Amino acid sequence: MGAKRDVKALRKRVAKLETQAGDKRGKTAVSPLAPTAMPALAAVEGARFASAAAGIRYKDRRDVTLIELCPGTVMAGCFTRSSTRAAPVLDCEAKIRGPSDAGAAILVNAGNANAFTGGAGREAVARVTGAVAEALGIPAARVFSSSTGVIGEPLPFERITAVVDELKAALDPAGMTDAARAIMTTDTFAKAAVAEVALPGGTVRIAGIAKGSGMVAPDMATMLVYIVTDARIAREPLQRMTRALTRDTFNAITVDGDTSTSDTLLVAATGKAAADPIKGAGSPEGRAFRKALGAVMLDLAQQVVRDGEGATKFIEVRVTGAASGADARRVALAIANSPLVKTAAAGEDPNWGRIVMAVGKSGAVADRDRLSIRLGEVLVAENGWRAPAYREEQGAAYMKRAELVFAVDLGIGRGRARVWTCDLTHRYIDINADYRS
Amino acid sequence: MGAKRDVKALRKRVAKLETQAGDKRGKTAVSPLAPTAMPALAAVEGARFASAAAGIRYKDRRDVTLIELCPGTVMAGCFTRSSTRAAPVLDCEAKIRGPSDAGAAILVNAGNANAFTGGAGREAVARVTGAVAEALGIPAARVFSSSTGVIGEPLPFERITAVVDELKAALDPAGMTDAARAIMTTDTFAKAAVAEVALPGGTVRIAGIAKGSGMVAPDMATMLVYIVTDARIAREPLQRMTRALTRDTFNAITVDGDTSTSDTLLVAATGKAAADPIKGAGSPEGRAFRKALGAVMLDLAQQVVRDGEGATKFIEVRVTGAASGADARRVALAIANSPLVKTAAAGEDPNWGRIVMAVGKSGAVADRDRLSIRLGEVLVAENGWRAPAYREEQGAAYMKRAELVFAVDLGIGRGRARVWTCDLTHRYIDINADYRS
Repeated sequence: MGAKRDVKALRKRVAKLETQAGDKRGKTAVSPLAPTAMPALAAVEGARFASAAAGIRYKDRRDVTLIELCPGTVMAGCFTRSSTRAAPVLDCEAKIRGPSDAGAAILVNAGNANAFTGGAGREAVARVTGAVAEALGIPAARVFSSSTGVIGEPLPFERITAVVDELKAALDPAGMTDAARAIMTTDTFAKAAVAEVALPGGTVRIAGIAKGSGMVAPDMATMLVYIVTDARIAREPLQRMTRALTRDTFNAITVDGDTSTSDTLLVAATGKAAADPIKGAGSPEGRAFRKALGAVMLDLAQQVVRDGEGATKFIEVRVTGAASGADARRVALAIANSPLVKTAAAGEDPNWGRIVMAVGKSGAVADRDRLSIRLGEVLVAENGWRAPAYREEQGAAYMKRAELVFAVDLGIGRGRARVWTCDLTHRYIDINADYRS
Repeated sequence: MGAKRDVKALRKRVAKLETQAGDKRGKTAVSPLAPTAMPALAAVEGARFASAAAGIRYKDRRDVTLIELCPGTVMAGCFTRSSTRAAPVLDCEAKIRGPSDAGAAILVNAGNANAFTGGAGREAVARVTGAVAEALGIPAARVFSSSTGVIGEPLPFERITAVVDELKAALDPAGMTDAARAIMTTDTFAKAAVAEVALPGGTVRIAGIAKGSGMVAPDMATMLVYIVTDARIAREPLQRMTRALTRDTFNAITVDGDTSTSDTLLVAATGKAAADPIKGAGSPEGRAFRKALGAVMLDLAQQVVRDGEGATKFIEVRVTGAASGADARRVALAIANSPLVKTAAAGEDPNWGRIVMAVGKSGAVADRDRLSIRLGEVLVAENGWRAPAYREEQGAAYMKRAELVFAVDLGIGRGRARVWTCDLTHRYIDINADYRS
């Protein structure tokens, strides 16, 4: 059993070397799937940003972010549906429908999720939002907050309230790039996306930042997204658009099928653009704005997948021909969440049998004999069997790519869906099996 | 980036050493969670077993098993609900309600799942079951079959039909132990369980064998279970019992949440016991038999988890206080299937926040403030927060055990459920990311 002992020693050595490789950058090495550069975040009129180091959990880095929004800003939001959602999420939900005449603010801290913290969690939210409200001279009902990091530990809110004046003094329309960095936890790169829409009367800007490394962070989940725009739009159409777009963007990505207690998406429309007001979601300008907002959301969502813990492959799962859209989504998520499909991707194994398996387990209406499966453009299976022309070498060559498309046509109806995921690697285990220290 | 290259080289070395460590046994080393010994399988009157080497995929090992059952044998079964289930499963489903006056037989092959093989799959099943029927002089409608192994490849049925005479000649009431070995694929140990029930008039014997290494095998899923008993019982009560017991045994285990296209459970009652006939499921002898059958099924199911790919921890998830039994099961499976919970177990991390997360995502009715969580007997969380007396050292010490109990009380109703799972380790990735060769 000498070989077995060697394996143990090597595992330890591998883990140590990996940590060292990460340490060179002060943290984990950047995901190989990261975009080459972060887009420039031009200022959006009516929104200012500041970040500061409050020492909540991390040392020597900014971990608190303040976003100030001008009077008249309209807020829309989508939140995790977890029944154990965190105190700041419950607070945001209660406030999101509030009036838009006063200004608004968003305060985000990294390092502590303020989740499963009982009455103390509510108290901490009240203290933090209260301090921001007082400093900015706006009602506490217009101060939103998010917390991300370890769960079950009391949020040291006094460290946040201690830096509110510093944050206020630092507010800057150009501060969004720093904010994208300050909200990171296990993220290996900062995530931002921008869009501009030409509307009658002028241009509307949309800029967004996100954090999330899969659905999961080392101690707990968390995907946080903040989007600001200078569009002039009422709350109801903005909320409806946000909710509808979330389904096909942030709710269409999965790293491990686990769900955050803290997932928060806030969209703030300051109304400062010169462009005409957007009348409704169905108007021509509404559709143009919706399209641009959707592009920003999809870009951010895909960046979260690209930063999935341990990811080496970016995978799009495309399902067509389902009995309904819901069925298509069910099949797509079954494939995207399957550990067998995800480990096959990690191993560059064109194991399409596992896709068949995932279709079968999804619960969606499926007929084995009408199913077809493609790896990119390569047809691998049809008519209930391997495609006659398919050769394993074709699949093996395709699987070496970093960006993969698994396409399934159920051959039954017109339902379609797309979801995005990443592979399941040793590094995922390393990150998540480590004892918290 | 020298460290990164080193990591790559070490990974390769680790993989090689692991293979070598496995090779010493001719296959993967036995799971550390395996039972110390396989129980002795006393003969069950009316059932004979034989196994042979047909060379379907493996070399130098028995890969085909024949079970012959005497005239009058009653058959019950439960099968995967996958919509892409394999040809032999569809065939079994069609035959299971057939009459019991003729004898019956079960033929099992390892190495090829005969799944997603279109019309050729049906043809192969017909050839195999036809050959067995002819050899044993029973109707083909009474010959059941299972195939396990690679998916999408045509089953070389002629290699099976070529050994049917050899199998027939080798039929032996004492052949069940060899059969348990011949049905293995990636299993690291053979799985068997036995029970005896004293009923009026005599003793009833129950003996079962199973294969499965999680829900999954290297190329495709597969859990196969064959149970024989000499009980005198009619088909309907036997089928009802089998179905009901499956819910809390084979359907209460999960390794990775993936579902086989081949899952098959067959229970054969030969009626040869001296004991009085079992009148119905609700009679005293029915209840006693059901209890013993349930014990055999649970034992086999837990052995499958103990052989979960890469498993180093055997985990029981206990949920109480749910609004309903269905809700309790939903919460238990959400915890048992969570990669974050499973990697925490692998890392011996008492990360109860991930259990909170899994409860939240389950969709079951839950109230954060009524939830309590225990690691074994250690109360870690209650009243919506960490338990006041809990110390991390207690949890850390508990997590070092090989057998873990995660207990969640939702504090709402009387619904309860138990499921069993294992941890998610590097070895799981090794096994499933390997390119098929």
